[in-house]
Amino acid sequence: MNFGSDNQSGASNKVLQALVEANKGPSAGYGNDEWTVRAEEKLKQVFECELKAYFVTSGTAANCLALSCMANPWDMILCHAHAHIINDELTAPELFTGGARVQGLDENVSKLSSDGLGLFLESFEGHPPHTPMPKVLSLSQLTESGQVYELDELQVLCRKAKEYGMTVHMDGARFANALVSLDCTPAEMTWQAGVDVLCLGASKNGALAAEAVIFFDTTLVHDFEFRRKRSGHLLSKGRYLGAQFLAWLDQDHWLMLAKQANDFARKIATAINSSEKATLAWPVCGNEVFVLMDEALIDALRVQGAIFYEWPMRFLSEGQLLSGPNAFILVRLVVSHSTPVIEVNNLVCLIETT
Amino acid sequence: MNFGSDNQSGASNKVLQALVEANKGPSAGYGNDEWTVRAEEKLKQVFECELKAYFVTSGTAANCLALSCMANPWDMILCHAHAHIINDELTAPELFTGGARVQGLDENVSKLSSDGLGLFLESFEGHPPHTPMPKVLSLSQLTESGQVYELDELQVLCRKAKEYGMTVHMDGARFANALVSLDCTPAEMTWQAGVDVLCLGASKNGALAAEAVIFFDTTLVHDFEFRRKRSGHLLSKGRYLGAQFLAWLDQDHWLMLAKQANDFARKIATAINSSEKATLAWPVCGNEVFVLMDEALIDALRVQGAIFYEWPMRFLSEGQLLSGPNAFILVRLVVSHSTPVIEVNNLVCLIETT
Amino acid sequence: MNFGSDNQSGASNKVLQALVEANKGPSAGYGNDEWTVRAEEKLKQVFECELKAYFVTSGTAANCLALSCMANPWDMILCHAHAHIINDELTAPELFTGGARVQGLDENVSKLSSDGLGLFLESFEGHPPHTPMPKVLSLSQLTESGQVYELDELQVLCRKAKEYGMTVHMDGARFANALVSLDCTPAEMTWQAGVDVLCLGASKNGALAAEAVIFFDTTLVHDFEFRRKRSGHLLSKGRYLGAQFLAWLDQDHWLMLAKQANDFARKIATAINSSEKATLAWPVCGNEVFVLMDEALIDALRVQGAIFYEWPMRFLSEGQLLSGPNAFILVRLVVSHSTPVIEVNNLVCLIETT
Amino acid sequence: MNFGSDNQSGASNKVLQALVEANKGPSAGYGNDEWTVRAEEKLKQVFECELKAYFVTSGTAANCLALSCMANPWDMILCHAHAHIINDELTAPELFTGGARVQGLDENVSKLSSDGLGLFLESFEGHPPHTPMPKVLSLSQLTESGQVYELDELQVLCRKAKEYGMTVHMDGARFANALVSLDCTPAEMTWQAGVDVLCLGASKNGALAAEAVIFFDTTLVHDFEFRRKRSGHLLSKGRYLGAQFLAWLDQDHWLMLAKQANDFARKIATAINSSEKATLAWPVCGNEVFVLMDEALIDALRVQGAIFYEWPMRFLSEGQLLSGPNAFILVRLVVSHSTPVIEVNNLVCLIETT
Repeated sequence: MNFGSDNQSGASNKVLQALVEANKGPSAGYGNDEWTVRAEEKLKQVFECELKAYFVTSGTAANCLALSCMANPWDMILCHAHAHIINDELTAPELFTGGARVQGLDENVSKLSSDGLGLFLESFEGHPPHTPMPKVLSLSQLTESGQVYELDELQVLCRKAKEYGMTVHMDGARFANALVSLDCTPAEMTWQAGVDVLCLGASKNGALAAEAVIFFDTTLVHDFEFRRKRSGHLLSKGRYLGAQFLAWLDQDHWLMLAKQANDFARKIATAINSSEKATLAWPVCGNEVFVLMDEALIDALRVQGAIFYEWPMRFLSEGQLLSGPNAFILVRLVVSHSTPVIEVNNLVCLIETT
Repeated sequence: MNFGSDNQSGASNKVLQALVEANKGPSAGYGNDEWTVRAEEKLKQVFECELKAYFVTSGTAANCLALSCMANPWDMILCHAHAHIINDELTAPELFTGGARVQGLDENVSKLSSDGLGLFLESFEGHPPHTPMPKVLSLSQLTESGQVYELDELQVLCRKAKEYGMTVHMDGARFANALVSLDCTPAEMTWQAGVDVLCLGASKNGALAAEAVIFFDTTLVHDFEFRRKRSGHLLSKGRYLGAQFLAWLDQDHWLMLAKQANDFARKIATAINSSEKATLAWPVCGNEVFVLMDEALIDALRVQGAIFYEWPMRFLSEGQLLSGPNAFILVRLVVSHSTPVIEVNNLVCLIETT
Repeated sequence: MNFGSDNQSGASNKVLQALVEANKGPSAGYGNDEWTVRAEEKLKQVFECELKAYFVTSGTAANCLALSCMANPWDMILCHAHAHIINDELTAPELFTGGARVQGLDENVSKLSSDGLGLFLESFEGHPPHTPMPKVLSLSQLTESGQVYELDELQVLCRKAKEYGMTVHMDGARFANALVSLDCTPAEMTWQAGVDVLCLGASKNGALAAEAVIFFDTTLVHDFEFRRKRSGHLLSKGRYLGAQFLAWLDQDHWLMLAKQANDFARKIATAINSSEKATLAWPVCGNEVFVLMDEALIDALRVQGAIFYEWPMRFLSEGQLLSGPNAFILVRLVVSHSTPVIEVNNLVCLIETT
Repeated sequence: MNFGSDNQSGASNKVLQALVEANKGPSAGYGNDEWTVRAEEKLKQVFECELKAYFVTSGTAANCLALSCMANPWDMILCHAHAHIINDELTAPELFTGGARVQGLDENVSKLSSDGLGLFLESFEGHPPHTPMPKVLSLSQLTESGQVYELDELQVLCRKAKEYGMTVHMDGARFANALVSLDCTPAEMTWQAGVDVLCLGASKNGALAAEAVIFFDTTLVHDFEFRRKRSGHLLSKGRYLGAQFLAWLDQDHWLMLAKQANDFARKIATAINSSEKATLAWPVCGNEVFVLMDEALIDALRVQGAIFYEWPMRFLSEGQLLSGPNAFILVRLVVSHSTPVIEVNNLVCLIETT
């Protein structure tokens, strides 16, 4: 029963089969192959707009390459205080941007609020060239706490950012899960809301290792190829990245994978809600379930073979810390596209009966 | 009546005369001159210990060169949220360290508290290599709000940092003002309290442009000369830096300059305390007076030729914001070594009579 | 007939099958999986020594991560003037090392000579901290001109480097081809000759995208995990890298793939030698054939569907430029593990009959 | 008798007096003072054009800040193989530019030839984004061998650079000496010949520590203030830089200082030409005399107290190495603005009589 992380899952059969197919014969190197070209075309259909897309193997590379096209080495990048780019990508943002500053906001809530962003920007009072000035807003959809920004929240955040001359980046490591959750179109959740650059992650949801950096604002793109090459992220055999994306996007495969994971996560959430030994830390919006859990329940689940991780308590708000029973521990349960239904049922059963 | 900043003052006559003296004849370049050698020796006497000292022209260079010897490009540097290195040195810390993260703490108080530091470190729960980990604590003495760390506060902060394997940097842009304020020895305020590297600023207190990076822990020093050279801070005519420091340290000149500035600042504080149109934002510990001031008083002072700057309201605590009258604005009045007594008296008189 | 580059080939069936096998079920992320662990163990057997190995997806990442562990930002890296790191990895060496200098030597010959290296080092006369000093020697085996360093050449070059306090890096993008060519052991061609860090490339010879950074001198290793993470090269699903290497190294698969490519290259070389319209630029030591070719022959081959690229004439020595007929153009023909025998025969036939 | 380097000289009395004058009273910080403004205006007169000028304390800072505005982190900067930026500024160009490549050309001659530059550019054949491409040409006037580019040489080199889309930087550490030597106007030697950015050095010729970065092409300027600040080169007390430049440029003071140094250097050259124990390595064009000198003469001069340094033999051409007597050693004799005439006469006398 692995609920450790969706990046511990394998690739879907369809994606894997596409890789085997793409392997036949020689093809042009460095992204000049037909799979890469077709994957970009497919993304234009999916997002219903012109765009420029580049493919890399890791989410950190995708995010930080994108940010490096958006921020100068003396600019400030704003994000939620729990964001992956500020907590889990070491100092990659600094390396790729040449030294931009990453500033986390709103640490006491599970997603960035327009009030939190607005208050920061209004009171900032920097004085260039002495102070790094806000230049990029980075939003994670889903957030690191598994929350989703509603469309109107996205719109308000993007509008606020643009009032201050900033561009908007979206870390879409779990983009498909958010999309299914909101039941909207990819266009609505990105450029129509004001997102300029999207990092669309496939690795956590059915691919081996494939992420797309998608520029809706193509004026930001010009240096990307140099930045990708000099960071070692231009694969010689680019076809394998294109092939993964083509299969993943084909016939809503990506959405079906995400939908199943989300459905299972909701099942687990329902069980949590019925338990006295656990309580949801935040609502379940995608494929992640954050739970304040009694230590005895944690032990019981682990004895039965469940794999999952504790999550830093500092991500809880003060209110949560005060109201929760002291013995409760924050844990994260993640469902992936390949989590077997039997494992979900087993977990649910264990939660309900322990 | 210039109370804008102590870096708007000139050099003291003694320092200037030393520069003229040092100008005679040729001397060895790149810091291999006798003035530089003697200035380092003088610092050993002043700090009563072995040390290694290097001289540069700006505080940003001094601080960031020091930090680059202490933090790897993937480490985290902790400081008070109002610190100069995080607010007023652009992204110089990132450039010099190759991309280390600077994290501000305790934004609601005027200096870093041991509780604030302790709480952060205890709850941090990073997981290398994904998370940048705290490696350096940087303390400003005086702080950006003109506050002084008492010796026991310094000791507790340094001890806490070292518990977590960190080294301690002190930004001493106004070191002399703090020293006079505490009436202790340079040794007590630095290495005896646990400071490993001090940036001792002379520019704000009597020199033209001279800062010393002083390594008490000389194991941290080995790369300094390479770092200084490649950042363009190895002056060919090093004698001018050494000469400034020699004169400045000679016969307690630096302390007398600081003492006069501090005394004048206290005079102004007394006037503020007696006024109904102004209130001290924080106690006056050195040569800076932070005041919540009625707009009418601000205007009146400026009409009479007083120069001073507003200070970001975000540096106030929530308590201060709530309790203060709404019309009050935060301003900073700085006294330098060369502020004429008549200007201080005029200002005091204006405050008392407006 | 694709003789464009070995990085235009697909993966071998065995490697691909291993990938499919490794896909089943969940596994630990970020290189903590069993495939990664076993691949490192396998490398210890292959190289007959203790070592530390890390896996990444691109040769540029492998080379530059390795170099970043070996050179400070103010050091100089020496390599042959035709080396991949100086000509084909943009400024990745500078990005990863934080700004070290890459210096090419011996541009008039097809591999670095001990005389060329010795002369440079003896006459260098740098004066730190003003001059970047040689710290790392990087050797490519095969070289960019398809040449191989004999074991005694490697030994002499490494010894010379170490006399001057340098460590030795080997870019082994075509390591297997060189190994088959020399008919020696992996140990003899690396650490026994004096190589400290090897980048072992599988991508050009049977893998999808898999390169190993192998530290024989494990004292150089300590920062690698931080450097890999912050450059975005720590894959969440590390098993796919480990699985590729395990299959590739299993039962001399890698050597058999290389042997076939080398054999085919020699067949082509024989045909060139018998033609009046072409002449070998350099001896054929591995899977690359560099040819000075009559424009008419080039056209004829291309009309028949042969794909291959011109190579910069500046890589020829002055002697070659003077003695060759003016109309000759330098081209590179590369054979890969998956080049069909029929295509080799067709090419040979065309060369012989045109 | 100090002929070690012109950077071992002090400041001229006029410059020093200006510094003392500028010290009086407070002034605006960070280059917003009147001296800085007036110095820029003065430069517009001197160069007879619109321009933007910034002042810093070291030549390395000036050169590398300028280059960082001209080259992206993936571009190549071309210069003569003996240039200061490639031999004597450590890896500062890499730090400031974020990792651009510096490529030296024409190592066998004492200044860059248009043939050398042309041949390199024509045969370069890079393929972006794999290869760093030439973007900036950096010329030193005087060169590191004390040679001067004639106006027509400058024009041809700049034209060639611009054919290839490059901009042109001039390292003018000894600009005044070159100007006096050519007897032309500052405009003729810079923007009229095609120079886009000039680093005008005063430190070696009468100032304490003052260098100007002058943008004739002001479209290159926009990031300069951020770059200067984050490298620690924005002095708080900018007036001291402006004041030095104002005095130095006033009433041709800079040219008179340079003229005297050049005249003295020619006197020494004449003595060398009459000696059998020494021979000029290159013609004397400015204030530097490069001499192949018999070891006995070297010893004799040093016994009499002459200070001067050996220079790397690798800077000699093969022809010079072959034709010269083996026992000869390459030394550099530098005259500064403050070298006393009696010391020049003594040296001349010693050379003539030894």
